[in-house]
Formats: sequence, structure tokens, C-alpha cells
Amino acid sequence: MSTTTASLATLAPTGRDARLLMRSGRYSGHTAGMAPGYVQGNLAILPKAQADDFLRFCQRNPKPCPLLAVSEPGDPFLPALGQDVDIRSDVPRYRVWRDGLPVDEPTDIAALWREDLVSFVIGCSFTFETALLQADIPLRHLAQGRNVAMYRTDIPTTAAGAFHGPLVVSMRPLKAADAIRAVQVTSRFPGAHGAPVHLGDPGRIGIADVSKPDWGDAVEIADGELPVFWACGVTPQAVIQAARLPMCITHAPGHMLVTDLRDHQLAVL
Amino acid sequence: MSTTTASLATLAPTGRDARLLMRSGRYSGHTAGMAPGYVQGNLAILPKAQADDFLRFCQRNPKPCPLLAVSEPGDPFLPALGQDVDIRSDVPRYRVWRDGLPVDEPTDIAALWREDLVSFVIGCSFTFETALLQADIPLRHLAQGRNVAMYRTDIPTTAAGAFHGPLVVSMRPLKAADAIRAVQVTSRFPGAHGAPVHLGDPGRIGIADVSKPDWGDAVEIADGELPVFWACGVTPQAVIQAARLPMCITHAPGHMLVTDLRDHQLAVL
Repeated sequence: MSTTTASLATLAPTGRDARLLMRSGRYSGHTAGMAPGYVQGNLAILPKAQADDFLRFCQRNPKPCPLLAVSEPGDPFLPALGQDVDIRSDVPRYRVWRDGLPVDEPTDIAALWREDLVSFVIGCSFTFETALLQADIPLRHLAQGRNVAMYRTDIPTTAAGAFHGPLVVSMRPLKAADAIRAVQVTSRFPGAHGAPVHLGDPGRIGIADVSKPDWGDAVEIADGELPVFWACGVTPQAVIQAARLPMCITHAPGHMLVTDLRDHQLAVL
Repeated sequence: MSTTTASLATLAPTGRDARLLMRSGRYSGHTAGMAPGYVQGNLAILPKAQADDFLRFCQRNPKPCPLLAVSEPGDPFLPALGQDVDIRSDVPRYRVWRDGLPVDEPTDIAALWREDLVSFVIGCSFTFETALLQADIPLRHLAQGRNVAMYRTDIPTTAAGAFHGPLVVSMRPLKAADAIRAVQVTSRFPGAHGAPVHLGDPGRIGIADVSKPDWGDAVEIADGELPVFWACGVTPQAVIQAARLPMCITHAPGHMLVTDLRDHQLAVL
């Protein structure tokens, strides 16, 4: 993981470097470790017919869906995230959904572009994980080169139109003092899921077996550690999937949009 | 409790009202609920011979000993806390210590005053408890009219001269979401012990039986709640007691100095 991360950082030291690499078709892998210090985002592209409902869904559920940018219908550019961001080519790998099922994972969606498509970019935990590491708070899944463990909870989101479903959370095991510090550190980043939503007993939020995540990889909770749970960007993806839209496009898991925003620009304090 | 608290608030709506009441000798009870919104402080008065070490102790242990003011030697006034604060008369009840043992609880210490005495006023949890209640975080010990539960831990303080000993903590049982919010709320008040130092398993900080506090009253931890532990102003009192100074003076427990500072003035954010 560290070798890969280091080499990805060398491959694309800035957000623009990363996007030019994707746009050229020379890279279609995951983005963890790319352009260190630059904000990465979750992507959802929906037809205008559903986009207004989805915008209200995000507004009502800011912890799982912190909106970094929403495009004009049909406009593939997102100037708020970088002068030349072209959402049709700048994500390394997309996932195309039809009627709620994944049907393709292209590296470019120019051929699918339509005048009614609206792009949503949603903040991602990479931003707060960078801040946690800078605060010397160890993150086991990163140390072990795994994906973070994610779980469906019994905490409902606030519905909007066809969009509804349970909150999905990511979990990081931390010692109590680190958990307290992590609340402080991540509270600075409401644009990247903010403070945890729960800590301690997983059963309290409807997680029956913490050793069996619904997404990502299981991670050990050591003696003296508490599982700490953050709202997760998989929530909007699961909600979109459940809404069974005729067509929509997301990023492929781990293959994020890398922006020109710096992580510190998302800090409110 | 609520009746008493309400009547104390009427009796002394401001910090100055409270101090004039103490100074007149007409009130010598506890100060919980007095002068709502005004900062109350723990008091320690030490001879200059030990005061310099104690000042370094406080500097090294800011979570249990957040200093609000330190007087000049022999000066009974504390202008930083209110224009007319006279530390010889303005606390409702004092505790006089000789060789580490409490020997008296007078309501005035004018007769004991010496030219070498230095007064230390240390922030108190009343400030952050007010902020927690304003954030709709329920505090069971207050609802039940009890003292907060306090415990000796196995977390060492950083020594200075004769002053050393374990950290004392106060405990409040909270639901996980309230515990997370409480970290945010109390982080704003480093002058009143700041963020918690621990949450969850009491054994991790050397508390063998959470149902048996070393000071204050036991409080139930309900199903689904976590015990949340804050550094406590009893720490410096215990440390001073253990140092067995020939003579020193503190406030009697619960009988605090009420200042002119407003709670919000201690908020760093």
C-alpha cells in the first residue's frame, strides 16, 4: 500500500495532474494516495428528471452527502472544483447503472453524455483521514492496505422523492483518547462527513456483526479500542441504486474525482 | 435541586451579587445555580514558598488545572476576575489545611491572611455543564440533584516540585451521539477542563468500580450509555493535600468563587 501510495503521489502530485492522467486514458486505477492534500470526491450523475429530488436528498442528509459541487444540466464542467474539470473524462473509472443494476465500468463517458445530465460531487473520507493521520491518529485499514469497513445501519436518512434508505457508515477502531481527538479533528470537515455519528456498541445502530462489513474489508478492533462510525459516501450510492433510476452514472468504488481544492479549504475552523 | 437552583439564581443573579452576599456573611452555602452564566472557579491559596511550584504544576497540567487567575503575593484582589473580588471574604466557605489535614471551614479568612499568600483560581465544570445543558445534552446527576461522580485514575499528572499525583476525573453517562456532541461542546472550553480525557471502559484509566466514586455521588449508567470522563478540579486539591503543606486554604467543596466573567468569555470558538 505504501509503495503504491507513494508512487501514485509521484505520478500525480496535484489534482490537475491526476485529472490529465485520467483524461489521457493512461491511468484507470484507484485514487487513494494520489495528489496528496487535494480533495477527492464521490460522483453521481443523474438525469434532470431525478436530479432535483436528489439535490434535496443531499441537502437533507449533509453528513453522508456533503455537496462540494452540482453542475448545470448538460454542462460537463465543474468550475467550483477546478478550472478544467471535465466530468466526462476526468474520473479514472465510472460505473453505469440502468434500472438499479450496474451494466458497465467505462473509463470515459463522453459517448453517454446527454443534455439533461446533472453531476453531483460529494465530499469523501480521504480528506478527514489525511487530517487524522496528520494528527498522529493511527488508521488500521490504511496501515494494513485494506479498504475501510462499511456497514448499513438502522439509522434512516431523510427521504426526498424516490431517494430514501438507511445511513451507511464507515468504521475505524480507535483508542478512547484518539476517538476523542478524532471527534475534534473531523468536526472541522463538515464537507467530508464531519464528526462521527456513533461510537461504541455497533448494535445500537443496527450493526449485528461488526466483523462482517457490508462493503470494504473487515478490520480488527483491538482490546481497549472503540469502533468509531462516520457517515459514509456509500449512502448516496446505495440510495441511488435502490431508487432504480432508468439510467445514472457514478464513479467506480475507490476511483474518485480528484479536484483542485486543497483539503485545508474544507476545514471550517 | 431545581427549586434551590432557581432560588439561588434569584438571590444572586450576577457574579457581583453573589460575592456581595458572601462578603456580607448572609450566605455560606454551595454556589451551584448561583449567578447563571457567570464563571465559577476552584480556589487554592498557597504560601509563596510553594506557590511557584504549584504554578508550574498547573501550567504542566492544564486539563485538570486551567488557570483563570493568579494573584500577586499578599494581594487579596483578583482584578482579572472582577473589579472588587476580595479573596478573603468572597467565597461562601473555605477549607483551611495544615500539614495536609483539613482543620477548619470558615466563611472568611481575613484573620488568616498573610503577605506571602498567593491565590489561584482554576476553571470549573459548571461552565461546560451549562454549555452541555444549552446543547440539550441531559446530565443525570443534575436531574437527580446529586454531585457529579469523581474518581482517582491511574493517569499520572506531570509533577512540579512537591506537587504530583494521579488525575482525578468526573464522569457523566451519555448516549453515544450525545458523547460525540459533548466532545465538540466542551472542546470550546479549555478554561473549564475542555474535552473529555476518556470514554468507555473505566478500567482503562484505572477505575475498578464505576459504581463507587472516590468523591461525589454514584450515578447510574443506563443501557446504551457510555461513561464519559473529564479532567476534574479535584485533581489540584488532591495534589495539594498530598503535598502536606504546612498551611494552605481552598474553597470548601461546592462553595466556589463566583466571578464577573461570563461563561461565553471562556469559549475559544
